[in-house]
Amino acid sequence: MKVKPLHDRILVQRIEEEERTKSGIIIPDTAKEKPIMGKVIAVGDGRILENGQKLPLSVKEGDRILFGKYAGTEVKIEGEEYLIMREDDVLAIIED
Amino acid sequence: MKVKPLHDRILVQRIEEEERTKSGIIIPDTAKEKPIMGKVIAVGDGRILENGQKLPLSVKEGDRILFGKYAGTEVKIEGEEYLIMREDDVLAIIED
Amino acid sequence: MKVKPLHDRILVQRIEEEERTKSGIIIPDTAKEKPIMGKVIAVGDGRILENGQKLPLSVKEGDRILFGKYAGTEVKIEGEEYLIMREDDVLAIIED
Amino acid sequence: MKVKPLHDRILVQRIEEEERTKSGIIIPDTAKEKPIMGKVIAVGDGRILENGQKLPLSVKEGDRILFGKYAGTEVKIEGEEYLIMREDDVLAIIED
Amino acid sequence: MKVKPLHDRILVQRIEEEERTKSGIIIPDTAKEKPIMGKVIAVGDGRILENGQKLPLSVKEGDRILFGKYAGTEVKIEGEEYLIMREDDVLAIIED
Amino acid sequence: MKVKPLHDRILVQRIEEEERTKSGIIIPDTAKEKPIMGKVIAVGDGRILENGQKLPLSVKEGDRILFGKYAGTEVKIEGEEYLIMREDDVLAIIED
Amino acid sequence: MKVKPLHDRILVQRIEEEERTKSGIIIPDTAKEKPIMGKVIAVGDGRILENGQKLPLSVKEGDRILFGKYAGTEVKIEGEEYLIMREDDVLAIIED
Repeated sequence: MKVKPLHDRILVQRIEEEERTKSGIIIPDTAKEKPIMGKVIAVGDGRILENGQKLPLSVKEGDRILFGKYAGTEVKIEGEEYLIMREDDVLAIIED
Repeated sequence: MKVKPLHDRILVQRIEEEERTKSGIIIPDTAKEKPIMGKVIAVGDGRILENGQKLPLSVKEGDRILFGKYAGTEVKIEGEEYLIMREDDVLAIIED
Repeated sequence: MKVKPLHDRILVQRIEEEERTKSGIIIPDTAKEKPIMGKVIAVGDGRILENGQKLPLSVKEGDRILFGKYAGTEVKIEGEEYLIMREDDVLAIIED
Repeated sequence: MKVKPLHDRILVQRIEEEERTKSGIIIPDTAKEKPIMGKVIAVGDGRILENGQKLPLSVKEGDRILFGKYAGTEVKIEGEEYLIMREDDVLAIIED
Repeated sequence: MKVKPLHDRILVQRIEEEERTKSGIIIPDTAKEKPIMGKVIAVGDGRILENGQKLPLSVKEGDRILFGKYAGTEVKIEGEEYLIMREDDVLAIIED
Repeated sequence: MKVKPLHDRILVQRIEEEERTKSGIIIPDTAKEKPIMGKVIAVGDGRILENGQKLPLSVKEGDRILFGKYAGTEVKIEGEEYLIMREDDVLAIIED
Repeated sequence: MKVKPLHDRILVQRIEEEERTKSGIIIPDTAKEKPIMGKVIAVGDGRILENGQKLPLSVKEGDRILFGKYAGTEVKIEGEEYLIMREDDVLAIIED
């Protein structure tokens, strides 16, 4: 079974604390809107522009990303928790 | 009798808990805005663009979809409950 | 006397409970924003696009439609109650 | 002396209760936002589009119109009360 | 010294009660948002359109105009009170 | 050291009371949103239009301007107080 | 490890009080929304325009910038605090 996000939406799996510490990114406790790190599991086929054309997303499957604390909607698929958010909710891509 | 959604709207029938469990998707109780799974029964003939052209929808009859808890308007047709929502309220399509 | 809605507006007459039951559509009591069924009595000559062109409406005189509970403005004409709403307030067209 | 509404604005004179009853249109007391009937006294020379062109109005001098209760701004000219509103506040034109 | 309004703004001097009575325009006391009459003292060189072009204003120096009670910002220049507002705040031009 | 405002922003230095009195402009105490006079110290290289082109600003270095009381953000540079605001916050240019 | 901001976002490191004093910029305590100085660490590959094209950013790696107090989202990377904000939150570039 596969979840295909619509248009400019992406399916994201959070990366847990331990993993984040290894990668060196720590989210400050005092921040009101904490960015969260995640892994992109699936992406939509593009943002629909005003002229009706589809613009492919910049984020792709497998990317590790930073996003705002309140971004997206939670969903559980086969026991795993995911988020579905719009590409515009992504703050940055982590490049190794 | 048939209900034809207007423009970028779609007619959706919720898929109940039992069915969802079989498919492996469970909605977490703690989520503020629960995504809901449904089946697309009918779709409008397209989103009207600013230049007046109609863009056919990406979602089609028979698709199983995820959508936000508060998406759409409820309506009962011949004893069955449905939702009418805009395509943009659809988070993802479930592909088997 | 005739009421000609302006641009993308339409004149609608509600279809009462009894009639709706015959057609098989029942509005749930628990829904916060009940869709309502009506008959289109007159339509405007089109939505004005940003480039100034008029796009004819998809809804036409005689159509039976579903719309949101709070859509439109009430008006009485020769003793009959009507609603004037924008085409975008229409959720779906009922096809027999 | 003449008042020339600017761009997409129109100058309207309300049609009083007695006149409305003759014409068969009665505004329900329970309606939250009552439509009001009026006569168009003067119109602006057109709505300015995003590309800078002027689109002539659909409403013209002498038209009898329906509009929302809170539409427009009141002004007294030579003892008579008028309203200045945008064409988009007009719900419908009354055709005899 | 001269004040040149920017883009689509205009410099307006209110016309006082006595003058208005002569011209026949009286503002009703009960109106929540009173239109006010004024004389245009200076105008900007045009509204900037989305494509970057400038659209010259329809209102010109010397015009007598009607505008909403809360339109514009007050400024005193050499002892005289003026208002600076956008052309879109102008309801109508008074033609004699 | 130089501060270069970004895009359609400008760097402004307030002109104090005494100077303003000489120039004849006095701000009324009763005005809720007082316009303020200032001198333009630096300007951005243009407003970015929707098509990506840059439109050079109409306001230029050295201009004396009027702006709204709450326009812009305060910043101190080498002991002097300045404001950084968008060109659209400028009401008028003072021409001598 | 590298953080690549998405589209029109930039990664910024705050410049602390002592450094700012040396450069001559002091933020007034009374300002409601304090501008803050920072150094640009990384930039996105451009703002997406309505026609789908990417407009490269004006701000570049190494630039010292001024931005509003509430701009951006805080993130810690390898023990260092950063902000991720949109280019439009940048008030000015500091040129030496």
